[in-house]
Amino acid sequence: MGRSLLSSTVIPVRFPQIPKSIPPLDRSIHPIPPTFALNSQRIRGFSIPTKTFCTKAVLSESPNPKRYPKMGSDSVGPIPPSQLIQVVEHAANTGAQVVMEAVNKPRNVTYKGLTDLVTDTDKMSETAILEVVRKNFGDHLILGEEGGLIGDTSSDYLWCIDPLDGTTNFAHCYPSFAVSVGVLFRGKPAAAAVVEFVGGPMCWNTRIFSATTGGGAFCNGQKIHASQTDLVEQSLLVTGFGYEHDDAWATNIDLFKEFTDVSRGVRRLGAAAVDMCHVALGIVEAYWEYRLKPWDMAAGVLIVEEAGGTVTCMDGGKFCVFDRSVLVSNGVLHSKLLERIGPATEKLKKKGIDFSLWYKPENYNTDF
Amino acid sequence: MGRSLLSSTVIPVRFPQIPKSIPPLDRSIHPIPPTFALNSQRIRGFSIPTKTFCTKAVLSESPNPKRYPKMGSDSVGPIPPSQLIQVVEHAANTGAQVVMEAVNKPRNVTYKGLTDLVTDTDKMSETAILEVVRKNFGDHLILGEEGGLIGDTSSDYLWCIDPLDGTTNFAHCYPSFAVSVGVLFRGKPAAAAVVEFVGGPMCWNTRIFSATTGGGAFCNGQKIHASQTDLVEQSLLVTGFGYEHDDAWATNIDLFKEFTDVSRGVRRLGAAAVDMCHVALGIVEAYWEYRLKPWDMAAGVLIVEEAGGTVTCMDGGKFCVFDRSVLVSNGVLHSKLLERIGPATEKLKKKGIDFSLWYKPENYNTDF
Repeated sequence: MGRSLLSSTVIPVRFPQIPKSIPPLDRSIHPIPPTFALNSQRIRGFSIPTKTFCTKAVLSESPNPKRYPKMGSDSVGPIPPSQLIQVVEHAANTGAQVVMEAVNKPRNVTYKGLTDLVTDTDKMSETAILEVVRKNFGDHLILGEEGGLIGDTSSDYLWCIDPLDGTTNFAHCYPSFAVSVGVLFRGKPAAAAVVEFVGGPMCWNTRIFSATTGGGAFCNGQKIHASQTDLVEQSLLVTGFGYEHDDAWATNIDLFKEFTDVSRGVRRLGAAAVDMCHVALGIVEAYWEYRLKPWDMAAGVLIVEEAGGTVTCMDGGKFCVFDRSVLVSNGVLHSKLLERIGPATEKLKKKGIDFSLWYKPENYNTDF
Repeated sequence: MGRSLLSSTVIPVRFPQIPKSIPPLDRSIHPIPPTFALNSQRIRGFSIPTKTFCTKAVLSESPNPKRYPKMGSDSVGPIPPSQLIQVVEHAANTGAQVVMEAVNKPRNVTYKGLTDLVTDTDKMSETAILEVVRKNFGDHLILGEEGGLIGDTSSDYLWCIDPLDGTTNFAHCYPSFAVSVGVLFRGKPAAAAVVEFVGGPMCWNTRIFSATTGGGAFCNGQKIHASQTDLVEQSLLVTGFGYEHDDAWATNIDLFKEFTDVSRGVRRLGAAAVDMCHVALGIVEAYWEYRLKPWDMAAGVLIVEEAGGTVTCMDGGKFCVFDRSVLVSNGVLHSKLLERIGPATEKLKKKGIDFSLWYKPENYNTDF
């Protein structure tokens, strides 16, 4: 044993020929970005651009990408932002403590549908969060995934609580999942916190994302920004599929296929709030999903917008948290993604799929 | 502010009616497991079984599930297992140190194909791993993803090294990715280690999976076991899609759709070795992918088998690491998954898609 690297025999591997399908670089669906068309060489049957670049340094080639309207609130209302975000973060962390205590214990799973789960932990986390909110703002309206609507509908504030976003992942100990708390002021997101559980067995950990309208987005106290990638073929994307397997679900399978074909990949992780925070963190460029609920979206959308990203419905229309679909992106990619997602969604509308507001508490006063 | 929970007004939410698509529990593709058919009630338009159970305690209802042949080696060969695994783990950890140093720095990305990336870190990690292997076993044959085949083809040992499995995730700082080191003895997996990078920005962490043939599988030193779930509708699955978008790729999109429809979900995380370790850890029930390479699979398959899982090709045939596809599962689910995956793969064969061995070093002596 022990032979030096210098004396080693290096045998070039004869890899098998790439099968006769058309190599990606020749496909019209895969145009070579002009900056990478130079210096190509052939390795393993592919034409390979060798120019290197730093992913994080890719700048927009579209100096004036289309602007979409802001969907966050113009104000956090009469409560000082620092006070509001403190309670939002405290509420999310309180729920997260309940989840963390349960993370290594057996789960008691109940079913809402055949594959739509709920655990005791969802319910206990919501109870703990409600207690924090009610103790601090007893006159606010609250919409929780498990408990429904509680409180005074004449309040300008509506708390949207997902005590355990990604319950299926939680039930399987599969990271990630999250506790999501978003507060609306007159119907629009004003403050938000998401505690993400990462790692999984043997190395559970959390990080907290937060935002107030106009105040930026943060992860563990550090300011975060969506990515600058403006080419679909250089983007990493993520989507989700709900429990109802209707036409919208089938359309999103088609979109998953299309974008898997033309991007660096489409991830399917299983927790909407987490996926949106990942857009805000700049580790994926965009996320979309049909059939979401206010508690899935209220926090994540604000965190994305405050990180410099863009939020619309999947038809490109102005978004509100009572809508049924969402597309969040780093902003510069938004129009390019809508070139495919928009028409697919319009087709669903023509088929009669309902894209009206999913739910809005009666008598709750909104600015739209 | 400050109103007690007892005095709060609880307003039941009037959720919108579920659209007129057939609810999942009525669909023939979604039979109700007999144990959950009792005590159902209607909530939100769904028939909901309320019986609770602990996911981890679900036992097989098939006392004699079909047995598939073991694919791991019968022996680690003349080197003592403790010595071999020590070097395997040291090699994987050495690569992981290189990756950890790079994890918060900008990436230099080069392209193998339009969306098939390689970074400086892949290459530096492989160099570091090679050094460990060559220093300890200078006469062994090595197959690295980046460097190809090095060493003596008359050796009984072949090291299969993926210095950075999940490069796209790494390039985007998206967890997870891994360093994977597997050693074959006469062509069959004998020892393996995978260092998984979890968490992502603000909370990077690693865990190490390892196995020797006949010696069990471990994560951070603790023995691990695949799950016991034997119902597809209670399973969480994961798959992958390669860079070549041929008929096999399109078939797997169809499988992704089918299994998303009938299981608790199909995840798409982006690193083969990681996905296999997650099967071994019991957090997903199965993983499959077409178009893999020996360095993607050599470590992961042994870790799954030693955790009590089953490994075959996607047509159900006996697997070796030079094959082009893999299905790994917790074992009890294997036949049920093959009911869908097997015929889909047979169709590809009939179309002329090549499922012969992808590559085997010439003159390398194997037991099959």
